Amino acid sequence: MAAPKLGEFERIARFFAPLAAPEGLGLVDDVAIIEGPPGFQYVLKTDAIVEGVHFLPDDPADQVAQKLLRVNLSDLAGKGAAPVGYLLTTSLPRERDETWLEEFAKGLARDQREFGISLMGGDSVATGGPITLSVAAIGRVRRGEAVLRRGAMPGHAVFVSGTLGDAALGLKAIRGELPRLSAGDRAFLAERYRLPRPRLALGQRLVGIARAMMDVSDGLVADLGHICEVSGVGAVVEAARLPLSPAGRAAISAEPSLLAAALAAGDDYELLFTASPEVEERVTALSSELGVGVTRIGRVEAGAGVRVLDAKGAAIPLTDAGYRHF
Amino acid sequence: MAAPKLGEFERIARFFAPLAAPEGLGLVDDVAIIEGPPGFQYVLKTDAIVEGVHFLPDDPADQVAQKLLRVNLSDLAGKGAAPVGYLLTTSLPRERDETWLEEFAKGLARDQREFGISLMGGDSVATGGPITLSVAAIGRVRRGEAVLRRGAMPGHAVFVSGTLGDAALGLKAIRGELPRLSAGDRAFLAERYRLPRPRLALGQRLVGIARAMMDVSDGLVADLGHICEVSGVGAVVEAARLPLSPAGRAAISAEPSLLAAALAAGDDYELLFTASPEVEERVTALSSELGVGVTRIGRVEAGAGVRVLDAKGAAIPLTDAGYRHF
Repeated sequence: MAAPKLGEFERIARFFAPLAAPEGLGLVDDVAIIEGPPGFQYVLKTDAIVEGVHFLPDDPADQVAQKLLRVNLSDLAGKGAAPVGYLLTTSLPRERDETWLEEFAKGLARDQREFGISLMGGDSVATGGPITLSVAAIGRVRRGEAVLRRGAMPGHAVFVSGTLGDAALGLKAIRGELPRLSAGDRAFLAERYRLPRPRLALGQRLVGIARAMMDVSDGLVADLGHICEVSGVGAVVEAARLPLSPAGRAAISAEPSLLAAALAAGDDYELLFTASPEVEERVTALSSELGVGVTRIGRVEAGAGVRVLDAKGAAIPLTDAGYRHF
Repeated sequence: MAAPKLGEFERIARFFAPLAAPEGLGLVDDVAIIEGPPGFQYVLKTDAIVEGVHFLPDDPADQVAQKLLRVNLSDLAGKGAAPVGYLLTTSLPRERDETWLEEFAKGLARDQREFGISLMGGDSVATGGPITLSVAAIGRVRRGEAVLRRGAMPGHAVFVSGTLGDAALGLKAIRGELPRLSAGDRAFLAERYRLPRPRLALGQRLVGIARAMMDVSDGLVADLGHICEVSGVGAVVEAARLPLSPAGRAAISAEPSLLAAALAAGDDYELLFTASPEVEERVTALSSELGVGVTRIGRVEAGAGVRVLDAKGAAIPLTDAGYRHF
């Protein structure tokens, strides 16, 4: 989310990074890592969602609960961590009745079963504003094995799981902005917006294979930019290789400027990682075994920043504003 | 905060307790406890504050930051834990400028130095509503030594640190509702509302002495009620023994109904604990050593619920609504 004058990343660098503990990894990695029982570390992450910003007032409460949990679990997946549990903070307007809360709790229960986690504590407060929900997720890795953002090296291949752009296109579909798309495609994309799928099994299996990893929540170009910045490298992405769903491909064919959704929009919650090109076969085998697509989309190079090339090798211009404000 | 139909505690019991992990202690203890490095456990707690509910829009941003940290540190103190660090989630309206954030960060920095903690991570999101801030605080205890709510036994004495009612009276003073009080008294009470003092040193030293403990954030009667409920006991409080500050005493002398502030209002963030009467001398010595007042205010008895007696031993009637909505 961009802020009035400085962007989120500049604000963090200027105001919060000076406050960071070593366990906070300089706040460049989005998570904290603390020592756990012998041989293990905990990965801690907090993510908030706000009504009217990250979900819509009419979104079903059970799906809001699932999205809240899943965006946090996705961060754990991006470090190769196994989820342990979570703390929940709800700020609810007084006029929300118990029906909403009951549906919300049903969504939590469903995903607790699906992902094998439980609620460990939290806080409930009243608010005069929109529903604001935050989760602090607790994950576990073997000591020293969390996959950080800072490990990308020139020569690495860049991979991404699943398909990109669906969530942003799904939001457009929900808002009625993709009327020419089939009802089935619109429903598929809306589901991708409402119910991200954290790639937990893939993330854990990529430990020892991926050298830098994170989940895509701010958009591919921005997030790959984060990896590049903290690793001190640059990266090239080939637009023609971006993995698109059939529905996403249909939307972009009808309106080519929507390619920006795959490059620059957030909320896809897929895994983005770099690895030596030598492990590509292992990555492909893992992808088949787990039934989760993984696509090589580019490479890491010396330098700085992210370049996106079209099918002819020409650079596609990307403005900062362009991918922040899609 | 009471909700439309069910209160916060009923909501937690009905919707969230069925989701709780063993580490969440059935959600009756406000914190989670997970295994740490050999010999240690982590105590995890999250608390949120909302503009217009827990702080005022004109409150200085640095003090808002300090209050946010301190209400969380107070929860750690209530378990006898030493603070380790925290994750921060900020939901800020776009119109809040960087001046606010800069002052906010200064407040965090000041309290990081005071309490020896650092920021470990977090999330910043935009909101269309009031500022909503939440912290997940991480503390550490020796394994098995966290002081829970469930240890109160008939015959125990009930103790409380510091003075009660100041925060609620401070809010009244800020709102201009205590015009007859001296300016000095009003300033003292306002400070107690804006800057709670988490009793971290006292909490840690009470490990092995206190058998049930928590911080007072919902009001003395409600919080002692929580201890009683999970311990399966009742308690008696002698109103004449309630520790009052000189400013609090002045306010209550002028308007005796304000005694409700000491009994029933929240936000005092003092420690409430039960212990064998035999350790009273140790408690007194600790109080002197640390320079923090500790007062014996009542006793635990068989049965259920909290009774408050006046100086003549007659019960002071307390309605549920009376202490929830002060």
